[in-house]
Amino acid sequence: MNVLIVYAHPEPQSLNGSLKDFAVQRLQHAGHAVQVSDLYAMKWKAVLDAGDNTASLSGARFDASHNSKHAFAAGTQSEDIAREQDKLRWADTVILQFPLWWFSMPAILKGWIDRVYACGFAYGVGEHSDTHWGDRYGEGSMAGKRAMLVVTTGGWESHYAPRGINGAIDDILFPIQHGVLFYPGFDVLPAHVIHRTSKIDGAGFERVSEALGERLDNLMTTAPIPFRKQNAGDYSIPALTLRPELAPDEAGFGIHVVRD
Amino acid sequence: MNVLIVYAHPEPQSLNGSLKDFAVQRLQHAGHAVQVSDLYAMKWKAVLDAGDNTASLSGARFDASHNSKHAFAAGTQSEDIAREQDKLRWADTVILQFPLWWFSMPAILKGWIDRVYACGFAYGVGEHSDTHWGDRYGEGSMAGKRAMLVVTTGGWESHYAPRGINGAIDDILFPIQHGVLFYPGFDVLPAHVIHRTSKIDGAGFERVSEALGERLDNLMTTAPIPFRKQNAGDYSIPALTLRPELAPDEAGFGIHVVRD
Repeated sequence: MNVLIVYAHPEPQSLNGSLKDFAVQRLQHAGHAVQVSDLYAMKWKAVLDAGDNTASLSGARFDASHNSKHAFAAGTQSEDIAREQDKLRWADTVILQFPLWWFSMPAILKGWIDRVYACGFAYGVGEHSDTHWGDRYGEGSMAGKRAMLVVTTGGWESHYAPRGINGAIDDILFPIQHGVLFYPGFDVLPAHVIHRTSKIDGAGFERVSEALGERLDNLMTTAPIPFRKQNAGDYSIPALTLRPELAPDEAGFGIHVVRD
Repeated sequence: MNVLIVYAHPEPQSLNGSLKDFAVQRLQHAGHAVQVSDLYAMKWKAVLDAGDNTASLSGARFDASHNSKHAFAAGTQSEDIAREQDKLRWADTVILQFPLWWFSMPAILKGWIDRVYACGFAYGVGEHSDTHWGDRYGEGSMAGKRAMLVVTTGGWESHYAPRGINGAIDDILFPIQHGVLFYPGFDVLPAHVIHRTSKIDGAGFERVSEALGERLDNLMTTAPIPFRKQNAGDYSIPALTLRPELAPDEAGFGIHVVRD
């Protein structure tokens, strides 16, 4: 299997750095091919702008979707973007690894999404009709591939519990797991979250790396989060609201997950 | 009143650019003082790294919190960071204006949060005890100030409705409104969201700018979102879970808002 790890942490000698190195070794020992996009080491350009299309659309005011659609179709994307898209095509499984900063990903990783997820590649794909609203949320360019988040936090697990003050970690990650990964078609495995990182010493590292190792060993067999597919009947088109008979008395992101 | 608009859009001639210009004029005509941090125009550095402390902590491995805490305390922060903190101190109300990209803010604005929200300034403030877990979620450096998001989306309003496929807009914005704004003490006004931006023509612009204008006219009197305060008794300390008798049968981010 081909595994791409997109990794966003500024310090190689951090817990995140050690876990990334551990993951690469674990996956390679299991016979997988691994590529790492180490965004800080690559000095990844975080900010989406007109320069992302090497053939600038002169005269026109800059429109991010329009610009990326043209560049993607014409093969004039900035080379760094095209290279990351090739890695995504190559991968069977994609892991995004990052520390949770302000309840989301670090800016450098958000900028990887903003720029690599071109129009025509990750969105703006497929036909729109009365029964099909584009290839997204369960369909799309990444269909058939798996994805998983590996996330570290400084806070306690209870602070991210279903009734924890920060909000439930599954809800905090929903805009990423559902909106960034499920949207272009990935099967999304449950996130692997490591809490209270500042308290992890040598013995702690053995424990957390082994727990991560087990997740990596089971990448192929772990059941994905059963997000509802957009075009399979659960949503009214074009309003794209969940049909009233489904999860009728529930609220929150959880209604978009099929419960047994 | 002093109003700071932190604005993140790459094209001045966009809907966002026009709305930002409109907002500045409307606020100034009402007698307010306005500063704008136009992050693209400022070529804001989005990526947090060791260079954010001009007095590099030599020999040590880079730790983001540790580095920012030292730099903030010693007055050795990068000048661009210190300048934005001064604007926050000056402001009575802060508006973050941005297009919703992949269900969050553009990377350049995330990088403003990551870098400006220093340890000792926006977090790591106040004492920890059995009844008080730091000055956060309703207390902190921004207490007494108001904040509001102004957000544009390409999608339809129904796609962001409580049962819309993208998730409810209030839930999508919770990590920002609760985790970024309420956390350091802001009173957070309900977000002003403008949908389906590609369909807004000249008449549409009059409509959406007037609706924004009304929100700006009422900045001082609009009731904030009644997020529950951390240290006022609703949460067990130190687990920081919502007490079992509050919202006992509910799930999702909504449990952190007081309902009448």
